[in-house]
Amino acid sequence: MRIEILDENTKKHLLEDLLKRSPNSYGEYEARVQEILDTVREKKDEAVFDYTKRFDKAQIDGTNVLVTEEEVQEAYAQMDENLLRIVRRALVNIEAYHQKQMQYSWFDSKPDGTMLGQKVTALRRVGVYVPGGKAVYPSSVLMNVMPAKVAGVEEIIMVTPPGKDGKVNPTTLAAAKEAGVTAVYKVGGAQAVAALAYGTESIPKVDKIVGPGNIYVALAKKAVYGHVSIDSIAGPSEILVLADETANPRYVAADLLSQAEHDELASAILVTTSRELAEQVSRETDRFIQELSRGEIIQKSLDNYGHILVADTMEDAIDAANEIASEHLEIMTADPYQVMTKIRNAGAIFIGEYSSEPLGDYFAGPNHILPTNGTAKFFSPLSVDDFLKKSSIIAYSREALEQVHEDIEQFAEAEQLTAHANSVRVRFEE
Amino acid sequence: MRIEILDENTKKHLLEDLLKRSPNSYGEYEARVQEILDTVREKKDEAVFDYTKRFDKAQIDGTNVLVTEEEVQEAYAQMDENLLRIVRRALVNIEAYHQKQMQYSWFDSKPDGTMLGQKVTALRRVGVYVPGGKAVYPSSVLMNVMPAKVAGVEEIIMVTPPGKDGKVNPTTLAAAKEAGVTAVYKVGGAQAVAALAYGTESIPKVDKIVGPGNIYVALAKKAVYGHVSIDSIAGPSEILVLADETANPRYVAADLLSQAEHDELASAILVTTSRELAEQVSRETDRFIQELSRGEIIQKSLDNYGHILVADTMEDAIDAANEIASEHLEIMTADPYQVMTKIRNAGAIFIGEYSSEPLGDYFAGPNHILPTNGTAKFFSPLSVDDFLKKSSIIAYSREALEQVHEDIEQFAEAEQLTAHANSVRVRFEE
Repeated sequence: MRIEILDENTKKHLLEDLLKRSPNSYGEYEARVQEILDTVREKKDEAVFDYTKRFDKAQIDGTNVLVTEEEVQEAYAQMDENLLRIVRRALVNIEAYHQKQMQYSWFDSKPDGTMLGQKVTALRRVGVYVPGGKAVYPSSVLMNVMPAKVAGVEEIIMVTPPGKDGKVNPTTLAAAKEAGVTAVYKVGGAQAVAALAYGTESIPKVDKIVGPGNIYVALAKKAVYGHVSIDSIAGPSEILVLADETANPRYVAADLLSQAEHDELASAILVTTSRELAEQVSRETDRFIQELSRGEIIQKSLDNYGHILVADTMEDAIDAANEIASEHLEIMTADPYQVMTKIRNAGAIFIGEYSSEPLGDYFAGPNHILPTNGTAKFFSPLSVDDFLKKSSIIAYSREALEQVHEDIEQFAEAEQLTAHANSVRVRFEE
Repeated sequence: MRIEILDENTKKHLLEDLLKRSPNSYGEYEARVQEILDTVREKKDEAVFDYTKRFDKAQIDGTNVLVTEEEVQEAYAQMDENLLRIVRRALVNIEAYHQKQMQYSWFDSKPDGTMLGQKVTALRRVGVYVPGGKAVYPSSVLMNVMPAKVAGVEEIIMVTPPGKDGKVNPTTLAAAKEAGVTAVYKVGGAQAVAALAYGTESIPKVDKIVGPGNIYVALAKKAVYGHVSIDSIAGPSEILVLADETANPRYVAADLLSQAEHDELASAILVTTSRELAEQVSRETDRFIQELSRGEIIQKSLDNYGHILVADTMEDAIDAANEIASEHLEIMTADPYQVMTKIRNAGAIFIGEYSSEPLGDYFAGPNHILPTNGTAKFFSPLSVDDFLKKSSIIAYSREALEQVHEDIEQFAEAEQLTAHANSVRVRFEE
């Protein structure tokens, strides 16, 4: 990895470079996605099954689209027992963390009869998209499903594309069951998103669709937004390590590579106050790349979006971390908690040399679905709150309204909304 | 108003009808909006001032785009003193309610050295769009700004189109100052949204853009979403009154009309178990329409989207209210709190006969920016939370990581992410 000195110019180039990973012109795909959405909306099941035959080469219909209890049992039989045990241990932590995010209805009353409050209600039915293909990520199933389950969503529906044999990956299926999914449908792509957004004879309409997918799935989610809710569209993975001379260069290098291995658009950045650490980390990354099975992807990702920046002061380094607003931020300094207090923007913050990023991906409990591409400046990790919604509660007594009715009437008149004023006035006109 | 008997068919037609108010084909506008966005992104101030000259017929440049302290003082001098007093009284309530929504950072630690938590940070800088034109809604300024202020947003920037004289409406300006806006820029339309999303020489880039606007503003906000955050796009206003035979027909009628007066797409629906009440309300609405200054708009809105439904049972009535998921829901029944417990979907719930909807628009404290068009099934009122974001905190000690490191490594290996496994393994390899 190339070592650069951090200054305003470096920071500016780096930011512009990173943002380029989020291309905004998908014109050709958009039209095709819209056609799929329109067709499913009109022809429902028929269209869904047609597309599944065309895109997934699988023969799915109303009799076998819903995964049966036997198929789930089969999946368990095929799943690695050790992995199942680990999944269960991870779920205990994930559930415990998310339970702390729960929000409750509250109210505030006064003796004059007013009561104001906020009623918290779980979404009734949500859809979780799980990609098919060779790469299977049970951890992603757990992280998408558990916040909905903790929120109290009654029906958690999973959709995932079937293989040519009409089967769903057994590990995905067992993970879904463990996490609390209530029904699994064998459909994928934009047609699955359309089915969840509009409902078909077989697949019920949901209130919100979450989960990662390819470009068709992402565009379909964006297109149905407003009709249903969606999670934010995830970009390529990112890690930023903030370190001083006390950091272990071998740990830093290994952690940078753990994100670089995701894909060639992933970004791994070290910002450090120590020139010596920078050089050591650079050497260690070269060494690891030789050993690791995904060395080729890692090398490309580092060539594209890997950086080691040397900053004059820790303040400058923190400043850069806040501007980059990385998905994952590791702090390996002499006093990492102190540094943490100065961090404004990051999806997840890993503190100290034993808080390696994969600990958060798999096990610690916090969600691994995090804002990417600088959006940690305004977005949050996926959480229980994404599956709750609020209604305001307003109750006034006659006595309480009488105290303020003239103010309200005059405010409404000032906005020339006379029927607003009238609706308060009629209560005191006799 | 026409009285219909509530059944599955009525409900279905009514829902389809209401959803039609949210048209989804803005093709011609979209291209023009995109051009404005691209031009402002490239030419910055120059483009913003050009568009302002073209669309608002106002001569604005770098020297006068920012509202000065003198202009604010002038605005106060011109503002109605009584209205200012009412605004201040309303603000006390709005601030008090929103303070109860505040969320705080938390952590959970164990004696083995683990600490997990959630750090809550306010967005740093947000933009509030306020429409220009003849209709001035200071209440909307208060409701958009106060949640950001309570959240602790450092810079709250307002944009609003200038009149031909290059001035901003004085009431808007005074309301902005009262609510806590830190800077006001005289720009409007898609060009203002672009300036806030990308930044120009005069106007700083923000993290989030909120506030209502015309179709150009709405489409511009949608287009920059992801680059910055936005609030949800508001649809036409709605009220649903749930009433039994104990309700006062005159109050019910007046409240229905208070929303119908907004515009011809607004919707006002009464769902009642009492045929007698239905008939009385129908008569009362006719009477009010004669008297009210906005009678013509009200009549059109009622003809389009006004309904009185008679349900067999209160359960059926509640069911319909949940399916319609109205922006505003008033409950005027013998035991309104009991009914409230059964409400899943509504933006704001008004309880009892003295909780008239305009009380919530202007005075009680809860936000009046609410989910419309059925989106109360998954969206919430604008709140302090819209101006906060969270970062997960993960800290493990060596001791704690050692307990679980093999689980994490095996989970990562199962997902074929070997560099993930490696980054944990290196910490225990000596």
